[in-house]
Amino acid sequence: MKKIGKQSVNINTNVSIFSSGSIVGKKENEGPLSKYFDRYDDDAYFGEDSWEKAEVKILKTAMDIAVEKSGLQITDIDYILSGDLLNQSMSSTFAVKDFNLPYLGLFGACSSIGLGLSLSSMLIDGEFAQTVMIGASSHFCTAEKQFRSPLGLGSQRNLTTTWTVTGSGAMIIKKTDNGPFIRRVTTGKIVDMGIKDAFNMGAAMAPSAYDTIKAHHEDFGLPYDYYDLIITGDLGYLGSQLVLELFEKDNIFLKNLDDCGKLIFDKEKQDTHEGGSGCGCSAVTFSGLILDRIKKGELKKVLFIPTGALMSSTSVQQDLSIPCISHAVGIENE
Amino acid sequence: MKKIGKQSVNINTNVSIFSSGSIVGKKENEGPLSKYFDRYDDDAYFGEDSWEKAEVKILKTAMDIAVEKSGLQITDIDYILSGDLLNQSMSSTFAVKDFNLPYLGLFGACSSIGLGLSLSSMLIDGEFAQTVMIGASSHFCTAEKQFRSPLGLGSQRNLTTTWTVTGSGAMIIKKTDNGPFIRRVTTGKIVDMGIKDAFNMGAAMAPSAYDTIKAHHEDFGLPYDYYDLIITGDLGYLGSQLVLELFEKDNIFLKNLDDCGKLIFDKEKQDTHEGGSGCGCSAVTFSGLILDRIKKGELKKVLFIPTGALMSSTSVQQDLSIPCISHAVGIENE
Repeated sequence: MKKIGKQSVNINTNVSIFSSGSIVGKKENEGPLSKYFDRYDDDAYFGEDSWEKAEVKILKTAMDIAVEKSGLQITDIDYILSGDLLNQSMSSTFAVKDFNLPYLGLFGACSSIGLGLSLSSMLIDGEFAQTVMIGASSHFCTAEKQFRSPLGLGSQRNLTTTWTVTGSGAMIIKKTDNGPFIRRVTTGKIVDMGIKDAFNMGAAMAPSAYDTIKAHHEDFGLPYDYYDLIITGDLGYLGSQLVLELFEKDNIFLKNLDDCGKLIFDKEKQDTHEGGSGCGCSAVTFSGLILDRIKKGELKKVLFIPTGALMSSTSVQQDLSIPCISHAVGIENE
Repeated sequence: MKKIGKQSVNINTNVSIFSSGSIVGKKENEGPLSKYFDRYDDDAYFGEDSWEKAEVKILKTAMDIAVEKSGLQITDIDYILSGDLLNQSMSSTFAVKDFNLPYLGLFGACSSIGLGLSLSSMLIDGEFAQTVMIGASSHFCTAEKQFRSPLGLGSQRNLTTTWTVTGSGAMIIKKTDNGPFIRRVTTGKIVDMGIKDAFNMGAAMAPSAYDTIKAHHEDFGLPYDYYDLIITGDLGYLGSQLVLELFEKDNIFLKNLDDCGKLIFDKEKQDTHEGGSGCGCSAVTFSGLILDRIKKGELKKVLFIPTGALMSSTSVQQDLSIPCISHAVGIENE
């Protein structure tokens, strides 16, 4: 058995993050991580006639870039795994349909790219595949329209809200001896502390991130300073602070915690309140900035934990709480 | 490598469908399969105050029944995998959250239980888990409201429509030497023949079922009469006929094809037009009737292919076609 502890598995073979592709919108390109993204467009429609079609296009584009950079043929890929925020995962379905490859649809909200990394590692380590492509996307306008208010209404944004990233990230995961390698996987449990405020997702998701980070270190018996960086998906400033405080109650003082949502926008200049969010936030920050730093050797060991809030507009309207989940993958460059 | 052909894998160890649970609504209980379901309720709300909460409740109930019948403890289960039709898979999220187990959220629309069977087999055969619980659900009122028209409108139903099954099915998949066993998995590709009529899902999904059935037999080199029964998810009468016709063009004449959507309702008496549909249709028909027939030895080899139409109301409103997917699992009682 490769299972270790309560919710983790060891990836024993060399499963590598072989290639990646990312594309973002105007605001993300104006932010501090601009140079790490492969492509951007100032047009929120990306040349399409609806925001949803734009999101389909950017997810397909990120996948096309990942394939192009890998030097592989489409037919070398055994499976595609993808997920997004749109109802019935519309972006993923329409983005992958013309690849003509076996497709496993995922739903993990903003943790989707973590779900993709986890399952692709297991499929490869279990010898069911050699090469898997994963993707995730979000778009400010499609998410805002679907989960919050019509864009044209110009509603004022609560200070605790995050800004949904317009962006898509894709990665090709492959059995090969060139790293970085996915060494450990911890699958999240749903954590629901009863928070109902859909304008404060950081607070809703923080206990879930805490739960998965803790399970990961306990399952593998790792000290909390084992990783050079523990990077969550889209908790933002408040959510990230709450994770630190939850660990402090256990007398654990994390020095290596950061969050993709905090990194992707300039808090002072971009008026994004709590930071970035959405499936695309962690997908592009990881496949852009973090992978780059790992490949340069600036980071040797990274725990990547995309965080997801699994509510729908229906569950919020029916006054239900926000169940959250976080999936962690331990990545090492050797 | 366990991969065989273009889109299939062999499951080499004894991965068994160990236990199952099903619950249905009034109409399903009045149908011909009544005695095969574990539980039913005449109240469309199942004691809850919304249809969505009712769907959450029945999915949780099906899982509770599967656990109870298995004699296992909740803590014996390594992962839960689930999927449904509601926006952001609301039924699955809220049904599984209190189990406190690692959760992998799936999206395959009405093919979800096939996705669950496929991935759980791979997780177990790959030694990442010993025991996995899977589930899928649908509810006539939540689906009708979300994808078609408000129920109160009393819209007339096209003759090509299917009737969404109110029902949830769950199964416990376990490594054990008592069958029935999952021996073969074929993961579907998205097939989109450009059909846009959301009131004729059978026609939209038939080419996808044909594609996966064909890939399965070709990948494993099996004759088309190898299985005692090839059973699709929710194609209905027209869709099922179209699959036969597609095979006839290849000079293949299937004698062993049936469809859960055709079996679950009485066409003459229940006014359900094309038959049953929804994630719950294949989940309860398989975990009720088909598993029972396999266990009694009436069926020795079954190919189960849940079929999914991956559109959303947004994609339909934007005049996009209906991409479809079908996932197949080959089950044998020895």
